[in-house]
Amino acid sequence: MTSKIFASKLQELKQLKTNMYNGDFLLTWEKSQDELRAVIAVAECFKEMHRTGKSFKAFDNGLGISIFRDHSTRTRFSFASAVNALGLALADMDEAKSQVAHGETERETANMLSFLAETVGIRDDMFLGEGDKYQRIFSKSVQEGFDEGVLHQRPSVINLQSDIDHPTQSMADLLKLKDYFGSLENLRGKKIAMTWAYSPSYGKPLSVPQGIIGLMTRFGMDVSLAYPEGYDLIPDVINVAKDNAKKSKGKLTIVNSMEEAFQNADVVYPKSWAPYKVMECRTDLLKQKDKAGLDLLEKECLTNNAKFKNWECNAKLMGLTNKGKALYMHCLPADITGVSCKAGEVTADIFDKYRRETYHEASFKPFVIAAMIFLTRFENPGITLEQLIKNGVARKFAS
Amino acid sequence: MTSKIFASKLQELKQLKTNMYNGDFLLTWEKSQDELRAVIAVAECFKEMHRTGKSFKAFDNGLGISIFRDHSTRTRFSFASAVNALGLALADMDEAKSQVAHGETERETANMLSFLAETVGIRDDMFLGEGDKYQRIFSKSVQEGFDEGVLHQRPSVINLQSDIDHPTQSMADLLKLKDYFGSLENLRGKKIAMTWAYSPSYGKPLSVPQGIIGLMTRFGMDVSLAYPEGYDLIPDVINVAKDNAKKSKGKLTIVNSMEEAFQNADVVYPKSWAPYKVMECRTDLLKQKDKAGLDLLEKECLTNNAKFKNWECNAKLMGLTNKGKALYMHCLPADITGVSCKAGEVTADIFDKYRRETYHEASFKPFVIAAMIFLTRFENPGITLEQLIKNGVARKFAS
Amino acid sequence: MTSKIFASKLQELKQLKTNMYNGDFLLTWEKSQDELRAVIAVAECFKEMHRTGKSFKAFDNGLGISIFRDHSTRTRFSFASAVNALGLALADMDEAKSQVAHGETERETANMLSFLAETVGIRDDMFLGEGDKYQRIFSKSVQEGFDEGVLHQRPSVINLQSDIDHPTQSMADLLKLKDYFGSLENLRGKKIAMTWAYSPSYGKPLSVPQGIIGLMTRFGMDVSLAYPEGYDLIPDVINVAKDNAKKSKGKLTIVNSMEEAFQNADVVYPKSWAPYKVMECRTDLLKQKDKAGLDLLEKECLTNNAKFKNWECNAKLMGLTNKGKALYMHCLPADITGVSCKAGEVTADIFDKYRRETYHEASFKPFVIAAMIFLTRFENPGITLEQLIKNGVARKFAS
Repeated sequence: MTSKIFASKLQELKQLKTNMYNGDFLLTWEKSQDELRAVIAVAECFKEMHRTGKSFKAFDNGLGISIFRDHSTRTRFSFASAVNALGLALADMDEAKSQVAHGETERETANMLSFLAETVGIRDDMFLGEGDKYQRIFSKSVQEGFDEGVLHQRPSVINLQSDIDHPTQSMADLLKLKDYFGSLENLRGKKIAMTWAYSPSYGKPLSVPQGIIGLMTRFGMDVSLAYPEGYDLIPDVINVAKDNAKKSKGKLTIVNSMEEAFQNADVVYPKSWAPYKVMECRTDLLKQKDKAGLDLLEKECLTNNAKFKNWECNAKLMGLTNKGKALYMHCLPADITGVSCKAGEVTADIFDKYRRETYHEASFKPFVIAAMIFLTRFENPGITLEQLIKNGVARKFAS
Repeated sequence: MTSKIFASKLQELKQLKTNMYNGDFLLTWEKSQDELRAVIAVAECFKEMHRTGKSFKAFDNGLGISIFRDHSTRTRFSFASAVNALGLALADMDEAKSQVAHGETERETANMLSFLAETVGIRDDMFLGEGDKYQRIFSKSVQEGFDEGVLHQRPSVINLQSDIDHPTQSMADLLKLKDYFGSLENLRGKKIAMTWAYSPSYGKPLSVPQGIIGLMTRFGMDVSLAYPEGYDLIPDVINVAKDNAKKSKGKLTIVNSMEEAFQNADVVYPKSWAPYKVMECRTDLLKQKDKAGLDLLEKECLTNNAKFKNWECNAKLMGLTNKGKALYMHCLPADITGVSCKAGEVTADIFDKYRRETYHEASFKPFVIAAMIFLTRFENPGITLEQLIKNGVARKFAS
Repeated sequence: MTSKIFASKLQELKQLKTNMYNGDFLLTWEKSQDELRAVIAVAECFKEMHRTGKSFKAFDNGLGISIFRDHSTRTRFSFASAVNALGLALADMDEAKSQVAHGETERETANMLSFLAETVGIRDDMFLGEGDKYQRIFSKSVQEGFDEGVLHQRPSVINLQSDIDHPTQSMADLLKLKDYFGSLENLRGKKIAMTWAYSPSYGKPLSVPQGIIGLMTRFGMDVSLAYPEGYDLIPDVINVAKDNAKKSKGKLTIVNSMEEAFQNADVVYPKSWAPYKVMECRTDLLKQKDKAGLDLLEKECLTNNAKFKNWECNAKLMGLTNKGKALYMHCLPADITGVSCKAGEVTADIFDKYRRETYHEASFKPFVIAAMIFLTRFENPGITLEQLIKNGVARKFAS
């Protein structure tokens, strides 16, 4: 990317109408096209600055807080990388070491963490109806604290995966697609197969497939959602995606056949998830601490999953795609047949063929997160980014 | 705060006689009036710098180590915030992941952590007779290491709550009172009711009430300490507070009635704690690993606590205070009746009325901690602070 | 160290032929003499810069990742100190909170962590045949990611203790010896007794004694390795050390008597370890999850260890050394008789006499680690270091 290209990105960024300062990033479908394009433009600039050894440190100090209510490798390190690159220090809120158990309200915790915080990334994806709710309570609380003069600044809440959406993943995926096909405009009419795939585990979140159908329908893609009967996503999100497709002149089709979805696809995204009704049931049982009920549910689900072991991405299925050359995508880690499990989402040959592509897909995430933080915390992001680029501080001491 | 006010704080700071460099901050009553006033002046400058978007980063690099031997949310994040704002990196010592269990002596651990450390914050409040002792061993060890040339610098030990005092809390409380009543001088003669309150848990540390009576008696306040018979604090601390009150022409009264303490009070601080004799007994049982004895003790204590459920801060009691308008304070989290427990320290209506005030009270803590670190690590704090203010580096990249 | 001495170190550094950029630091015997000398020169400069209040921050931002698969205090904090002093942020990979359990491959994890990482420190010392292997897989993976354009930079892998070597320890020990005896040249012909010592625990790694004999034989030392029959080290490492000794005109002798090793020694390093055959057996049992087998092995080993309680470093043994004045060394924590255990590696009087020396020995570690990171991440380390020294940025804000 030459300085000419930086100039064009900055030009684009300045023309976009965004209203992200002092806000959050929770669901992609709450953001305008311009706002999504701003995230993309900033993320691309950051990635290019990093590649060419330049710093985009925009804060002198401040905390970037993470709250992970579920395991994480890549999102955890992507968030850590993003806050560090921007000049913030990561402070992980380990609820086991806090007084949360002590009856502290969520409103209070949110304020107590945030006196010197600029952003708070939250993963809360385990329980349907809970994750997004918690993120909104957190957001409301810091807004209130800011309005009341308790907080000097209003930290943004970044959704690092909720029960509804996984925007840092889907936006990284979108950047990968833009990079792969050359432009956002080139995505128009391209067919993406977001399909269920078999996994020997159960209870996987719905946020990835929901995030993909909710986002890719914004860009005129032909989204084919495929799953075995019963493995429905949250109906509200389906409606959002349908609505998006209508507005963008794209398409959302739901089928119950992997073959059908793969047929002539330009992109495939085979990934396991649990039926949303199972997730609802699981949330209820967890609330009731019904251990026996949970065990029974798991057993039933695994038995049911096992009926669909043929939902596996393999060479034969890939052969159905456009010229047999669809891009294989995954949020990682994938359940790879014969590698991480006996039978899984994808065969080892297909995964290996696209391994580099999936790693490259993941490489966008730190920059997407940094862009979300930047846009929610700087009032004039275009001007500030321009200045950062102009200053051209080296990432490593330049001798 | 205009630059004129910064100037007056700096003027004040330079006139104070302090001897804090290369020392610790363990108990407020070990510090002179001038030293306490220096902490206040620096903390106020830092808070105002932060509010107006200025950086007070004073270190280029170095570690700020935390050792939490008990759960913590706000102190943990306040310490993390303070070290980050000063330019240090937080390194949390998780004893479970260290070789402490491996028979390493405290002296050795203190040195091994401290080669590049500027400050070490320690919370050790669970066991009577242990916390303060551990902090002093740590302090002695790093002093020795520094004297022997093992350490290039002498990290300060900051008490983040011991069995005796909780100075970062009480100093934040003092700053809140100064802010609320306009000046330290205005605190003279103001009545503060530090009272026990009912909580459905047992074994809460004594450090908050001890810290409050030990500090507020320094500023001529009329301190009314109230608790049910038997819920005594450590006798030595009572003596310290009595002595303080005599010197400052303040007052320390001990009563066994919440009503009496609230009568005409300007400030109330209702907060549960365990009798110090129970804490002593608990420490012994823990040392003996007497599980049965501990269970029995807990049962007895909870039964005894339950006799005093009427020790609850409510509207009726608040009505007894000066014009019914006393300031309600709490170190948080409070046990709120009907919110965090069935019956607790305070009713929901009173807590809600003062919620913003308690959050604001907590907001002073990161700056108090930063001030303690700054004063123990910079030889000429007045001159250094003046320079930091003059430089006026922005917290966020200024475009 | 005057600027003249900085100048001479820089001069030396520039004359050394090193090829460490974009590489790792896994085993000292994979490094040339010049490369070991470069680590020493840089570490000495860094330590002196730190002592005189100067910063050697060489990165504007970036992550320094640590993966500890075993407990650690001093290496953990040394690594944290080193990355911070260089300008990186520590990101600890807690495998319990990651998706590693989720079937993710090591190759994938390595890439996913490393998008913005400059270095990765790994401790993996528990299982014979595993630790070094894991570090090499990690290294190969990030090299591949870099070659494939997935990673913008190639983080170095630093061995923070493997089953084979413990180079950050042995290099710190070497720096201590250089400091103590005045120069590397003065080590020639000096006798160092690397001896087994009794400990009431079992399963201690072999990496320290292996690291010592593998490194000190490079500098013409007369290395006397002593252990009770059966407590052999890995044969390959013995061969490496023998070969080193031959090339450096030093000596490696293996004896089964502590007395013999101490005889006329200039340095003694008494330290417990487990026989490598026991470690092999233990690794197998752990793989088979054979709990009963492991318990039995532990019992047998402790019984066997107990036969050698007389392998304790005490005043009488120290009397056998050169003029009775050998330097006592230990990687810490030591098992001190009557302090950390009933009977251990060393008597309290000897340990106390040399306590300051052992702490001083440990104080080199953060600077050794920083030097390894610096040399693997900067292409022209001599020029860059010269510039850092010239710039002379203060560690603390200079007023």
